[in-house]
Amino acid sequence: MTSPGAAPATSTVSSSDESATIHSLNGTPTPRHVLRISDLDDATWRHVIDSAVIYKKAGMASKPIATGKSLGLVFLNPSLRTRTSMELAAQRLGAHVTTLTPGQDAWTIAFGDGVVMDGAEAEHVRDAFGVLSRYVDALGVRVFASGTDRERDVADAMINEIAASATVPVVNLESARNHPCQALADAAVLSDHFDGKTAGKRFVLTWTHHPNALPMAVPNSALLAAARLGMDVIVARPDSHSLEADVMNEATDLAGAHGGSVSTSTNMDAAIDGADVVYAKAWGGPMRYTDPEREKAIRASLTDWRVTRKQMSTTRNGRFMHCLPVRRNVVVDDAVLDGPQAMHLDQAEYRLHAQQALLEYVFDC
Amino acid sequence: MTSPGAAPATSTVSSSDESATIHSLNGTPTPRHVLRISDLDDATWRHVIDSAVIYKKAGMASKPIATGKSLGLVFLNPSLRTRTSMELAAQRLGAHVTTLTPGQDAWTIAFGDGVVMDGAEAEHVRDAFGVLSRYVDALGVRVFASGTDRERDVADAMINEIAASATVPVVNLESARNHPCQALADAAVLSDHFDGKTAGKRFVLTWTHHPNALPMAVPNSALLAAARLGMDVIVARPDSHSLEADVMNEATDLAGAHGGSVSTSTNMDAAIDGADVVYAKAWGGPMRYTDPEREKAIRASLTDWRVTRKQMSTTRNGRFMHCLPVRRNVVVDDAVLDGPQAMHLDQAEYRLHAQQALLEYVFDC
Amino acid sequence: MTSPGAAPATSTVSSSDESATIHSLNGTPTPRHVLRISDLDDATWRHVIDSAVIYKKAGMASKPIATGKSLGLVFLNPSLRTRTSMELAAQRLGAHVTTLTPGQDAWTIAFGDGVVMDGAEAEHVRDAFGVLSRYVDALGVRVFASGTDRERDVADAMINEIAASATVPVVNLESARNHPCQALADAAVLSDHFDGKTAGKRFVLTWTHHPNALPMAVPNSALLAAARLGMDVIVARPDSHSLEADVMNEATDLAGAHGGSVSTSTNMDAAIDGADVVYAKAWGGPMRYTDPEREKAIRASLTDWRVTRKQMSTTRNGRFMHCLPVRRNVVVDDAVLDGPQAMHLDQAEYRLHAQQALLEYVFDC
Repeated sequence: MTSPGAAPATSTVSSSDESATIHSLNGTPTPRHVLRISDLDDATWRHVIDSAVIYKKAGMASKPIATGKSLGLVFLNPSLRTRTSMELAAQRLGAHVTTLTPGQDAWTIAFGDGVVMDGAEAEHVRDAFGVLSRYVDALGVRVFASGTDRERDVADAMINEIAASATVPVVNLESARNHPCQALADAAVLSDHFDGKTAGKRFVLTWTHHPNALPMAVPNSALLAAARLGMDVIVARPDSHSLEADVMNEATDLAGAHGGSVSTSTNMDAAIDGADVVYAKAWGGPMRYTDPEREKAIRASLTDWRVTRKQMSTTRNGRFMHCLPVRRNVVVDDAVLDGPQAMHLDQAEYRLHAQQALLEYVFDC
Repeated sequence: MTSPGAAPATSTVSSSDESATIHSLNGTPTPRHVLRISDLDDATWRHVIDSAVIYKKAGMASKPIATGKSLGLVFLNPSLRTRTSMELAAQRLGAHVTTLTPGQDAWTIAFGDGVVMDGAEAEHVRDAFGVLSRYVDALGVRVFASGTDRERDVADAMINEIAASATVPVVNLESARNHPCQALADAAVLSDHFDGKTAGKRFVLTWTHHPNALPMAVPNSALLAAARLGMDVIVARPDSHSLEADVMNEATDLAGAHGGSVSTSTNMDAAIDGADVVYAKAWGGPMRYTDPEREKAIRASLTDWRVTRKQMSTTRNGRFMHCLPVRRNVVVDDAVLDGPQAMHLDQAEYRLHAQQALLEYVFDC
Repeated sequence: MTSPGAAPATSTVSSSDESATIHSLNGTPTPRHVLRISDLDDATWRHVIDSAVIYKKAGMASKPIATGKSLGLVFLNPSLRTRTSMELAAQRLGAHVTTLTPGQDAWTIAFGDGVVMDGAEAEHVRDAFGVLSRYVDALGVRVFASGTDRERDVADAMINEIAASATVPVVNLESARNHPCQALADAAVLSDHFDGKTAGKRFVLTWTHHPNALPMAVPNSALLAAARLGMDVIVARPDSHSLEADVMNEATDLAGAHGGSVSTSTNMDAAIDGADVVYAKAWGGPMRYTDPEREKAIRASLTDWRVTRKQMSTTRNGRFMHCLPVRRNVVVDDAVLDGPQAMHLDQAEYRLHAQQALLEYVFDC
């Protein structure tokens, strides 16, 4: 909660320079937002990961260091893991939690500056998050990609408008472009599995078939997390389904700074051969914005992009990862998910521990 | 929670005499319902307002004087501020909270005595609130106007049936006719702003354009709150969009008793000129019940009923108020909402503080 | 929460031998699931009932013996009593609670082994409940009958798949076939009313008219609960609306073991004459699976199957029971529900007390 009268910060977003996301007018300090992993400096990134591993090993004991604090969660899209793990992480810290799902139990939200609100949306992002900032000490927000407006999706416009409207820290619970909580959980499970020695391990992020054109937030975040852990990352995907160039560049820079590398392959089998980690994820290609029917047709033809036990047997006793929810026998075979190499439930569990550690940072306690 | 076997109270509602709302049969004491501000005597009304200002100034500290108590919230319509602020107010007091949204996660509710329930509704108001009274120490309920049955809306029939079915106190979180929590928050923000000296200040409640025919609960409550603070109230609205006569009469009596006045204007500019407070609110006129198409056509032609910065510059450094959610650039211009005269976020924040103070009264702690 | 790496248990369900429900592969101990009342041995069954009566008489005091524990609730169907009473029961024990409603705020869930998930469902039961088991110490789950797949409904396939996917205890909050929480509350209210002397009392479970073909979980559970209390149970229903034969057989065995009996009548008036308890409940007959139009037509003609005050006057000062929600003047007349013989609100209240006692068992505290 901030004091009344604090002017809302204003957003200046450039799709080509994502580091210039949020500025504050008239001297109001910018809250401790966590919209993407680059909002955490190296020391904080490492501290959250290490704390998550410690919490995991210590079990479920409560640690009420945030008693009297409060967290507001706003879900503009569905969630199972994120909602549950955030509610419990906050409660374990002793904080109060309140959760809203606009469009269901709360008003639908309008985005954009200067909009004349004569349509379906009942409340503007500036007011909704201006108000919530008066009630709680931090916010967690999920808002998926539009899937239709590439410029705004690439700029992560909606979560940036939300953060610019808030006067308390906003934790991104998956936006159009980023999913930092998933990245932190993935980094923690990798750090745990490799006993901290992630640098130089081969991490294959492989695209898979899927009935829907999914957003890119998770593949972006997995790629950036693995790069920041100094892993040798291979992005395996069809020509039609590249990731955005600036995310690839950011990952390459990050990997370089941490002793790793980033490369691309269009051969799923070759990429997986010898991998230490296979991270499966479906996403819609950039063509979804320009020719969605063609993207759909191409995607529908690529049913072979499905992780199999045979592929996993070519790894270096590699682990299988997926952020969930996963389409069984479409993205990956049952035999992999139910076999000894699967680490998807550990990833999910690490959401709880990583977010508990992240909330300590956000609450500054 | 009441003891088992307590017979449900029975409702006797008269649209012409709202003060005769709730009677209890066979000697059961009527619970401490707060369905409208007249349910609070002057001392309680003042105490809740003053406590809210104290809580506001003291920040967010918890005050667990209701530990072991429980609050049930039932939303038959959407909410952002109300749900969040009630959940947090109760938690700050140490109480347990549970929230239902009938029609989504809970059964749809039938109203009316003697109804043969062979339609869509699965549960009767008497049973739903009879049961909930066994689980919690107080209830908060939102149920908007029907917009089609004027007699029942004017009589506030649904919230009265709910209260008559409950054996614990019911707090009205906005009904067809009343929104006492908004009234208390508005009174607290006005009392805070004018340092308690609200009597004689000019309060303009102005109708505005809106795409939808909204209910009258908020304008009614703002009018009654300002009147009870002894302000000189002007209701500015087109001929087509009057408020109900008995609410106007109640406000006139209240204002008289507290040193203020109530008048009406059909000239928005003239009313705002010299105002200390401009409270904007759209509502559907009485014609919505008799000729909704005509009400819509008239409303659609009145786009000039929109609060502008130019109008605000004619006030006595007046404040702008709105209950939210607000349609930007339809009800009021961005320049007002984002300018220094806007007090809508303070109003919203005061919901939390006022409701915390109100819950103390309701829980009797 | 279980430790990571625990393999999911595997389900082997046989519709003809429900006692062989859940097996665990590779030595993982089966969690303390409560899917039906036969999952509780006689001592536990009695202890939960007796504790509920004690809690009822002691009022609402909190008993925080589960501090630090957490409960996850998953509602695939609507709820008023169950959600509210479970959330509050857990909070009264000091536990954290988180509630999901898949299809609304969480992903829709696919059931069945080996399914190729290229349809509408986003997440498989195995993953959803595998993940949730990592977050919480116990789960409560509601999943109603399909109404179309008799074999799976009779086998209680969905709740069994959920339990087999979970590595923490699952409490059934109403499945296709069973509603053990309702059974415990009903048993507690009966035990309270008859001061423990339920054996030999006449308990009439009567079918009633209803606009919809409702599932059989509640009549099954009421029947089994009354049988386990040693009551003389009469199931009154039209020829068209029998209960499943194996449930009738299980009830007959249970009654025999506890000094009671089970019989059937197609004459509602005769069955109710002299009853100590009339428990009304509508359900769709077995014909709903084979000829739903005919079941509907027959049901529509049976409007006389409605409990009246006149019928209640022929009882031995009998009590009226219903699990709620109830269709007033369709299932039972207002005069019964609002009269002195009605015990439906007590039943509902006992949900809270019985579930608090059950959670103590489930949490093993």
